[in-house]
Order: sequence, then C-alpha cells, then structure tokens
Amino acid sequence: MISAIRNAESSWMAEGAAYQDVILSNRIRLARNLKDYPFPARATPEEKQALGEEIGSHLPWLLEESGREWLQLRLEEVTPQERGVLVDKHLISPQLAGHPEGASLLLSTDEVVSIMINEEDHIRLQVLLPGQQLHEAWVVADHIDNLLENRLDYAFRHDLGYLTACPTNVGTGLRASVMAHLPALVISKKYGRILTAINQMGFVVRGIYGEGSEATGQIFQISNQISLGHTEVEVIQSLQGIVKQVVEEERNTRIALQNSSEPMLIDRIGRSLGTLTHARLITTEDAVQLLSDLRLGINLQRIRGVGNATVSALLVKIQPAWLSLDNPSEGSSLDWQRAGILRQALEGVSLE
Amino acid sequence: MISAIRNAESSWMAEGAAYQDVILSNRIRLARNLKDYPFPARATPEEKQALGEEIGSHLPWLLEESGREWLQLRLEEVTPQERGVLVDKHLISPQLAGHPEGASLLLSTDEVVSIMINEEDHIRLQVLLPGQQLHEAWVVADHIDNLLENRLDYAFRHDLGYLTACPTNVGTGLRASVMAHLPALVISKKYGRILTAINQMGFVVRGIYGEGSEATGQIFQISNQISLGHTEVEVIQSLQGIVKQVVEEERNTRIALQNSSEPMLIDRIGRSLGTLTHARLITTEDAVQLLSDLRLGINLQRIRGVGNATVSALLVKIQPAWLSLDNPSEGSSLDWQRAGILRQALEGVSLE
Repeated sequence: MISAIRNAESSWMAEGAAYQDVILSNRIRLARNLKDYPFPARATPEEKQALGEEIGSHLPWLLEESGREWLQLRLEEVTPQERGVLVDKHLISPQLAGHPEGASLLLSTDEVVSIMINEEDHIRLQVLLPGQQLHEAWVVADHIDNLLENRLDYAFRHDLGYLTACPTNVGTGLRASVMAHLPALVISKKYGRILTAINQMGFVVRGIYGEGSEATGQIFQISNQISLGHTEVEVIQSLQGIVKQVVEEERNTRIALQNSSEPMLIDRIGRSLGTLTHARLITTEDAVQLLSDLRLGINLQRIRGVGNATVSALLVKIQPAWLSLDNPSEGSSLDWQRAGILRQALEGVSLE
Repeated sequence: MISAIRNAESSWMAEGAAYQDVILSNRIRLARNLKDYPFPARATPEEKQALGEEIGSHLPWLLEESGREWLQLRLEEVTPQERGVLVDKHLISPQLAGHPEGASLLLSTDEVVSIMINEEDHIRLQVLLPGQQLHEAWVVADHIDNLLENRLDYAFRHDLGYLTACPTNVGTGLRASVMAHLPALVISKKYGRILTAINQMGFVVRGIYGEGSEATGQIFQISNQISLGHTEVEVIQSLQGIVKQVVEEERNTRIALQNSSEPMLIDRIGRSLGTLTHARLITTEDAVQLLSDLRLGINLQRIRGVGNATVSALLVKIQPAWLSLDNPSEGSSLDWQRAGILRQALEGVSLE
C-alpha cells in the first residue's frame, strides 16, 4: 500500500490515451450494499466490523478470480495525510478518508480498481482510466462487480434495482464521470452556456474533488445525476456523447483563441510558467491555477520539456497532504515547500 | 547627437559610485536668463531665435574653454520619439521636449552636462552624475555657469539673485535633486512618515519624471523646494544630510525586511523575475514595477547575472519613445515589443 501513497503518479495519469489534451480521466463507480447489514451511517462499530469480515471472507477468492494483484488497507491504520494523498490521487473518496472507522480499501496494484468497504455504502467499486475510456472502464467495473455478486448477497429489488444509502444512487448504483480540463471555455466565458446544456440532459458538472468542490484550475467533473430508469450502457453512451461535444467545443475554442488573441493567450501561459519556476511561496489554489495554464500551454504545443502526466502528478504533489506526509506543517511553510517542488519539477521547461 | 538618442545607456547609470544600492543619480540644475530678452513663454518666435543666436555666438568659446566635447541639437529637427528618449534618459526636461520651437540643446558627449536653451528659462544648465555625488555635480555646474556668465549678461538683482520665469526658482536658480530607489520603505509603509519629515525641512519628494509625475517603481526624486535665502552650498549640504538619512533608513529597512519576512521578500523578487523573463505582453507601468523588484534583488545580492546599470538602461528601453523610435506603434504592439526586450536583456538572470 505504501507505494500508492508514496508515489504521486498513478496509471490514470499515463500519457497515450485519446482526448488527453482535454480529458484527464474517466471513472466508473458502482454503489453496492449487502442485504443483511444496515447502511454504514446507521451501523454500530460492531456491525461495520461484521460486514468487513463477511466481505473479507470472500476476498481470497475474489483476488484470485479477478486476475489482478491487490493491496489491502485498513484506513484507520494510516495517517490523515496518507488518506489525503489517496483522495488527491482520486483513488478513494473524501467520504472514506473522512470516516476511516471500520473502513478499508482494496486497491489493484496498477491503481485502476478501488474497492472501498464501509464507505457511504457497504461497497463502492471504482475503476479509473486515462483519456477517453469510459466504456473500457465500465467493462472492468462490470467484471469485478459480477465477481463480487457471485459471492455476496447484494440488496437488490427488481422494481428499483440496487438499493443504496442515498436515494440518488438507487437503481444501477452507477456514477460515470469524466474529468475534463476546459480552460478555453472558461477564458472565453462560454462555460456557463455549456453547463446549462449539460444539466438539461440530466448530467451534472462539478469541481475536481466531486460534490460541493469548486472547479479550480478549470478542471471539471461531468457525471450522470441519476441512476434510475436507464441502463448502465445507456448512461455511458449519453455521457460519451456529451463529452465528445464538450471536447470539440473546447478544442475549437482553443483554436479560436489562438486566432483572435494569441499574444494574450501566450502571455498568460508565459507568466504562469514564470511564476511556477520563480516564486518562493505559492498557495494550493494559485498553484492549481498556474498548472492549469501550463497544461493549456502543453496542449497548444507551446510548452516544451514537460507533459500532461507531470502536471497531473504535480496536482497531487502541491496538496497539503503530500507536502506534510513526513513533516506535518502548515501555512507559509507549506507554501514554501510547494514552490520548491514546482521549481524543481519544472526546471528547464520553456515556452516557444 | 544620434549617439545620445541611439544608446539607452548613459554615464549616470555607470556602476561604481557610492550609495548606488539606493541612489540612481544626482542632478544639479541652474536656471538662468539673459537681461535683454523676454522669458521664452512670452517671447515671439523671432525673439527666441535672436536669443538662440546671441547664445550661439558665444558657443565656440564656451565649448573650447569647458575642456569638454559637445553635441549640439535643435529640438525641432528631431522626432517627438527622439526627444522622448532624451527625456527618459533624464538628459533634457519634459518641458524642453514638449516645446521644441526655437529650443536647442548642448550636450557634453559624456552626457554629464546638458545646456538647454529656450526652455522655461533662457538657459537651463544640468549636471547629472551617478550615485552620491551631489557636491561633485555642483562643482561641474558652477564651473560651466561661470564660463557662461563671463560672456552672457545674466538677469540678476542683488536683492533677489538670478531672475527666473517661475518665482520658485528666483535666487540661486538652483535645483539640487537626488533620484533614490526606496522599495523597502514603500513595502514597509514607512515612506509616508519620511516624506512628511523631508517636507518639513523645506525639501520635496516627487516621482521619477519630476513635478506632477507619480513615484512609479518606488523611485523618488528628492529636491530643494525653494532657491531663495540659502546659498547653493547650504542647500546641497542640507540635501546631502537628508539623503544620507534616507539611504540609511532604506538600508536598515531592507535588513529588517530580510530578517522578519525574507520568504515573502524573495518570493516577490522571484515572481517579478519570472514575469520579466516569461511574459509576452507587459505595460510600461508593470515593467517599471517589476524592474524595481529586480533592482531590489540585485542590491540584496540575491539576483545574479544583471546589475543596476542594466536596470537603469531598461527603464529607458521599456518606454514608448525608445520602442517606437523607428516604428511608431502603440498599445499591445508596444507591450509585445517591451516584453521581448526584457526577456532578451534578462536571459540567464537567476535568483539565488
């Protein structure tokens, strides 16, 4: 488990997938519960433990059948900073990190599959892949879910589907989401109109860290709002269609911005690179914004010496959790460390 | 004359003088008028021409006696941009550049002595030296003034002294001024108190381009307010005393800032260097501020690869006059050129 915490890099950051100029990652998440146990929020510590043991008793079988290697972690046994790194890498939910009592995680060693136990639901199964691979992620999730279902007695009703702690997840228990970097749509102020259109289609746009978080760094998470009334494949196809449109709109707007105001755009990217490579104190919020400009520069082919994968890893390394893994610290000391990490990582990077 | 216009560098920018960590230059200016001619503001073009010829008839003698080499320039014969460069180098007054009709300039080839003819007064004699050399500048000015007075019939009254177009110059006709870079006093907000103290002593603090201009880039001009009732040497000694105190205060405040908030200070300098070396569009005002931070970094021994002289020359090269010497242009085109000049001049400069 240490490796997942001690490396800021993760397989979903890897370069080479389609649409990576705009899309950071795809996520499929399934919410599942067992019939004979109360939902975690209503369960006593003993009931949570019993659930953990029930699932645990089937694990050896699951681990073997899945064809993957796994790491196991009891969330209570690591520090809040270590849990924070897993959140910042998008490998576990903030909910799981914030309520570690009786919670555990099964993580495939390639960091593609996360099985969270005693989260808001008994089981949250997540598959995370880079670029535009929503369907591929669904195939992996469905396979693991079937393995689990073979051994566990899921709470399921034929009229409703899978039962979940929160009514918004009842049905398929599916949340399909895509993390997209939309700087041109934000700069050109087209973003509001597109958000409205996405909402009208029953999908929702959130900030990078899910519900309630702000869209810092022009990174948005687009996901289905409801999980009742449509099959998983229908939802995924709809989302793929929306994402395709958003990607095209973002790409076209980048071209339009280059045509209409290239000096302003390049100045913005240049100034951000200059600050990233020369500042001595940078807040998290500033760093996210500066890295967003850098990522835009990379995908406009104007920034040399760094790629999208490094930017994704830096978005983890600038977070307080990573910076205080070994030396819990705060405030300006974190800002100083953050600036140092950015300077070091981006040494020799240039704007053409 | 071309050389003074085509080089942004000038001898007052040269490194090696005392106090240059704070003081950019010292200036002695004497206002003189001839008895039998109306002040330029009230003179007809013919009267201005006659005055120019009167002075001109004595020039060969002056030029020889002074032991200096001189350049002569009729202001009407150069472009507004060329006059602008002379103003930005502080070699002529904005008044002379703005009213070139019948005006001319005698400039020593080392650019230390400027004799402006048909400015607000018939003659404005200026001596400009680097660092803390107010007395040395006075000695030079007094020598040239005596040479002029040997041949010209100055308007002088024994009860008042030299008569001038503006009553504030009556008496000695002297304005002694020191251009000082006071970033620490501005950052620490001590500047207001010091300004008040200076005013109470009969001296005045103005922005870099004299009366009515703002103190951009934390560069201030400290000069005597009145020229009646004190000898030249008294005024110069008082100003030297004030400047000594201001320099000490600025130096102490720089040390105090380094002790109390070095990370913030170095971050500020680093960010400014990063912007100067990476931006693609920079306004004049921004550039002056950024160069002020850079100069502070140089004098705190934290910036490597550039010195005060380069910063002084850049303060000329970022001005619209210099940028549009050959290609009159404006707005964002100037901002683009300005950023290019700064990037080129500061390539390889680093913060330690």
